[in-house]
Amino acid sequence: MENINGGVTAAQGFQAAGVYAGIKKKRKDMAIVYSTVPAIGAGTFTTNVVKAAPVKWDIKVTKESKFVQAVVLNSGVANACTGIEGDINNEKMAKAVADALNIPTNAVYTASTGVIGKQMPIDVIQEGAKLLAAELKDGNEAGTLAAEAIMTTDTYSKECAVSFMVDGKEVIIGGMAKGSGMIHPNMATMLGVVTTDLAISKELLQEALSADVKRSFNMVSVDRDTSTNDSLLLLANGLAGNKIIKEKNADYDNFCKALNIVTTDLSKKMAADGEGATKLFEVTVVGAGTKEEAVTLSKSIITSSLVKTAVFGNDANWGRILCAMGYSGVNFDPDQVDLYVESADGNLKIVENGVATDYSEELATKILSGKEVKAKADLKAGNETATAWGCDLSYDYVKINADYRS
Amino acid sequence: MENINGGVTAAQGFQAAGVYAGIKKKRKDMAIVYSTVPAIGAGTFTTNVVKAAPVKWDIKVTKESKFVQAVVLNSGVANACTGIEGDINNEKMAKAVADALNIPTNAVYTASTGVIGKQMPIDVIQEGAKLLAAELKDGNEAGTLAAEAIMTTDTYSKECAVSFMVDGKEVIIGGMAKGSGMIHPNMATMLGVVTTDLAISKELLQEALSADVKRSFNMVSVDRDTSTNDSLLLLANGLAGNKIIKEKNADYDNFCKALNIVTTDLSKKMAADGEGATKLFEVTVVGAGTKEEAVTLSKSIITSSLVKTAVFGNDANWGRILCAMGYSGVNFDPDQVDLYVESADGNLKIVENGVATDYSEELATKILSGKEVKAKADLKAGNETATAWGCDLSYDYVKINADYRS
Repeated sequence: MENINGGVTAAQGFQAAGVYAGIKKKRKDMAIVYSTVPAIGAGTFTTNVVKAAPVKWDIKVTKESKFVQAVVLNSGVANACTGIEGDINNEKMAKAVADALNIPTNAVYTASTGVIGKQMPIDVIQEGAKLLAAELKDGNEAGTLAAEAIMTTDTYSKECAVSFMVDGKEVIIGGMAKGSGMIHPNMATMLGVVTTDLAISKELLQEALSADVKRSFNMVSVDRDTSTNDSLLLLANGLAGNKIIKEKNADYDNFCKALNIVTTDLSKKMAADGEGATKLFEVTVVGAGTKEEAVTLSKSIITSSLVKTAVFGNDANWGRILCAMGYSGVNFDPDQVDLYVESADGNLKIVENGVATDYSEELATKILSGKEVKAKADLKAGNETATAWGCDLSYDYVKINADYRS
Repeated sequence: MENINGGVTAAQGFQAAGVYAGIKKKRKDMAIVYSTVPAIGAGTFTTNVVKAAPVKWDIKVTKESKFVQAVVLNSGVANACTGIEGDINNEKMAKAVADALNIPTNAVYTASTGVIGKQMPIDVIQEGAKLLAAELKDGNEAGTLAAEAIMTTDTYSKECAVSFMVDGKEVIIGGMAKGSGMIHPNMATMLGVVTTDLAISKELLQEALSADVKRSFNMVSVDRDTSTNDSLLLLANGLAGNKIIKEKNADYDNFCKALNIVTTDLSKKMAADGEGATKLFEVTVVGAGTKEEAVTLSKSIITSSLVKTAVFGNDANWGRILCAMGYSGVNFDPDQVDLYVESADGNLKIVENGVATDYSEELATKILSGKEVKAKADLKAGNETATAWGCDLSYDYVKINADYRS
């Protein structure tokens, strides 16, 4: 199993494009991912009661379509809170791509991100769909163009690919994702597309994805706001030529491992590029009695505004970490907790059994000044662990969100 | 029932003082509220698993002491996450006040606010206790000194008093409170002390307070962080001379109404003075099927970082409001929601049945530029309502919390 270059076009038979269609003022605003042969599709979506039109569409496609062949994505307009007109426009977007590629409309996934409540400029979108079909290409460069076209307040595009062996054949998984605000996935995350040439049953593909997001995208939070558009789509086209995986054997486990490398990488990139973020903040809870408690505690720490501002200020303000654990709803013994902070600049135990150790504030500040800061809480109550990814809360988060209508 | 000047010293027989003891660098840091006669006490406290030493003490006093006579408070150190040494220091603080006033130690409530994890400078506190006892005075000025001494990042002190009639006698309720970060009460709020000269049974006093906080302090959120120290204390000394209230009659209802005026006023002042806040943001949900749903929805809106930054930016970004309602966990029909915004500058319906009305963005921005901005969401699904109070999220929130070790 090894990391390779590339993203959604890394696996065999996947092409992509990213273009400027005219939805946004200047930047690329439409992307496509296409499989040259029919693929099976799996998806996980936002748990928000307010679901964008493309989310409703994709849930239906995942459930009812035997195969899928394309994903069309746009940035600039979220197509959420747009009523029936929004649903109609979304289907028009899918149909425009389907017509241009000569595939069925229900084989096209859609995804939108941007301003909520604005109707789609459907003429622009339909023209953009034709352009995307014409621009479809193999290779890493095309994948990167697609990854760039779905960015909103992201400061860089997010891609990852992994290669591994199944049944003597090389299989590749590649993906792209975008953040970077309204990030607090509950079922999936913002927009993510992962492609693979693995041959696997539709049931197992969905099962692998649903299990995976619980420990990857669902462990990311930038601002506790669960979007109306969160979608993670996974397409598998079988071109690797392996014997199709139909049961949870060693090959399935191997696939799950590789998938998790890709999704974890994209999750961490999303957290590190959270709106206004100056650093990645990774929190691991160990020694918990149950997995659920470890998850709840790590997410409570990662989402606390007070913890996040302290991390921004390079301040080892551990009282706020214990406080955030305390209001998480998990029952634990605060007098037994140990806390550690770590980065490239060092590793320090700052709390032992609920009270401060005699640690060096100077070294703690140095550690917290790193680009990737880790905190670890040991409950000493069991063997379960969980890791969550977030970022600091900076002036720029306020600036971006007070100014930007998203 | 009318609002009168004053705070904790407004009711008969209550004295107060606020002094500089030397815990903080320059500002007043210790306060006392004292009843010249034994009073009964009620309290509500943080639900955080990590409870500060004074919280643990006060829960015991509320449960076990037949009467209380003083509340001693300090700012600068929270006495939370301080282990057994913290408990011992807290009892020493209570005893120092008790000795100086010649009352039992278990008749003294304690409250602390400030940095978590630091031990109390107990010598300074014991000297401060003596000073407080010597400085005790009647009158509004003394109440204000106490209200000032408990401030941390608050920009102004918070007091309120109300006068009403019971059984032909004038009864007064007065209170003080402090914010202004780590504010997301779950049981009570940051520090609040309310005094009254009403004669009432201890059981009913507690019942009135517990019911009241659900619709006052528990509806405030500055930053979703539920503190380790939240405490609301209510002392009643009976000096009004009314026939003691022992059952839920009209007099009891009257008392509850007056209490709610004081607690709501203090709650709104706390929200408006949230760390870095430039305005009060009040959210009312109407037309909900159940009270619980109305509470959950209003708190979800008031706590969304994206909604709060939009309010800071005077941007009627209603999509974020609907989004925050959608992830609250409440099931509702987004296609039926109406949204209104209101301030001294006007009133505007911006969403009807889940989609934008043809409203004026210019007027919306003007409305959101007010000092007290209100939003109302109508679910049109029932008759229940709830109101929550919060504030915007500004650069200064980040500044205060990245710099201040609290």
